[in-house]
Amino acid sequence: MDLIPERLTCPADKQFVLVVEYDGTGYAGFQWQSNVPTIQAELETALEKLSGRFCRVYGSSRTDSGVHALGQVVSFSTGSELKARDYISGLNHYLPADIAVREAYRISPGFDVRRRAVSRQYRYHILNRASRSPLYQATSLRVAGELDTERMDCACRHLIGKHDFASFATPMGPMGSTIRRVGTAEVSRQDDRIVFIIVANAFLPHQVRNTVGLLIKVGRGRMTEEEFKGIMDAAEPGLAQPTAPAMGLVLYRVNYARELKEESLE
Amino acid sequence: MDLIPERLTCPADKQFVLVVEYDGTGYAGFQWQSNVPTIQAELETALEKLSGRFCRVYGSSRTDSGVHALGQVVSFSTGSELKARDYISGLNHYLPADIAVREAYRISPGFDVRRRAVSRQYRYHILNRASRSPLYQATSLRVAGELDTERMDCACRHLIGKHDFASFATPMGPMGSTIRRVGTAEVSRQDDRIVFIIVANAFLPHQVRNTVGLLIKVGRGRMTEEEFKGIMDAAEPGLAQPTAPAMGLVLYRVNYARELKEESLE
Repeated sequence: MDLIPERLTCPADKQFVLVVEYDGTGYAGFQWQSNVPTIQAELETALEKLSGRFCRVYGSSRTDSGVHALGQVVSFSTGSELKARDYISGLNHYLPADIAVREAYRISPGFDVRRRAVSRQYRYHILNRASRSPLYQATSLRVAGELDTERMDCACRHLIGKHDFASFATPMGPMGSTIRRVGTAEVSRQDDRIVFIIVANAFLPHQVRNTVGLLIKVGRGRMTEEEFKGIMDAAEPGLAQPTAPAMGLVLYRVNYARELKEESLE
Repeated sequence: MDLIPERLTCPADKQFVLVVEYDGTGYAGFQWQSNVPTIQAELETALEKLSGRFCRVYGSSRTDSGVHALGQVVSFSTGSELKARDYISGLNHYLPADIAVREAYRISPGFDVRRRAVSRQYRYHILNRASRSPLYQATSLRVAGELDTERMDCACRHLIGKHDFASFATPMGPMGSTIRRVGTAEVSRQDDRIVFIIVANAFLPHQVRNTVGLLIKVGRGRMTEEEFKGIMDAAEPGLAQPTAPAMGLVLYRVNYARELKEESLE
């Protein structure tokens, strides 16, 4: 992990939050890294062009390389006199076509978009067909063989509740508690498009993609619902494999105790 | 309209149909034109590379420049010994990334994919929000102001049945009968994504896009349901305006009396 470079920032008495959408295909994830394009760096560059000053941008969720977002929430503090609405059209002018600001609100200083989030919703899209898809391939994993979505749906219901999700973590040294609260987990299908929706208070790195990797085994009939639950109950990092590819995953929404609009000071 | 160039074709005793998906953004529509990329030309080029001989490709529906398809149906006759399944992987190898063959069947010679089609389903996608969208902008029309989808849905129900749809045609000289049978017409919304679904035996040129242009007026409150019906009843070409842009439209499916799979000879 690269260190974020220290840069001089301006006196910053106002804080804003943005709801951001992106096609993550061309980016090495949300978080700043040297010499590769990241969502954070693009947002900071656009903000500097718009406001004439550098502002550090903080994200509520660190999406991995290639992962998309419909509702990433970020915040920054600034001394600029720009209004919240100016950041929507202004940043969308400077941002590349694959990143866009959907909403902007001025909120109380000190509002921590990561810690204040009560839950995140991720969606994973699978295209269940043999041939490639011009219209969906950028945002779905294509799986050729038959997938039994009813079995996948039954299996994923075991995730609901407060559990130790260590098995769905990728082993990467000490990582603190692996207990998370899942509120929603469901698999549904419309024609050849399958979507897995999961809402939890927070997620371990790669948790959703490791869960999907396992659910695809269930859908293919290579693992039973009981074996799925057994891997979950074992709570052993690295057990849930393989990690499904990034392109099917989208950070759909970040939830707060109140709607961000209601936190708005303007 | 350019004339399709005459080319020598091989003795062609076998006929195949393909179900084709494409992102129409980069194409001047389905039908062959000189000096511009078209879906038909790309399919014919890929077929010639794969089978070593030129085959004329016929489409069931002429999609306009920039219009997409999830289920365009095309046919060709050939003397090649290739099997139906060979055309899926083989053509997908030679076709550009924005065109793909989803299904292929060998059928009885003389099966006319255009005349035998009993209905076509088109879908038009609207993104109802102020800011641009990296994930949906290639396949949706973005409309910033509020759209009342219930009013749009009520208005479009008047389209159902056998009617003279002349008002939804673009005036282009004599065009034969403008009577069509609409089976399904509905508008629904999920968050900021609106979809208009219409199924009819056949469509006049620009009919769906002219219908959507009018429905957006209804959704904005600039036209009543009665005015919508009045324009339809007037049956006067050019009345339904404006023509909604191509990028929101997708040829979703072409229906035959029996599933194409059941017509298959292999």
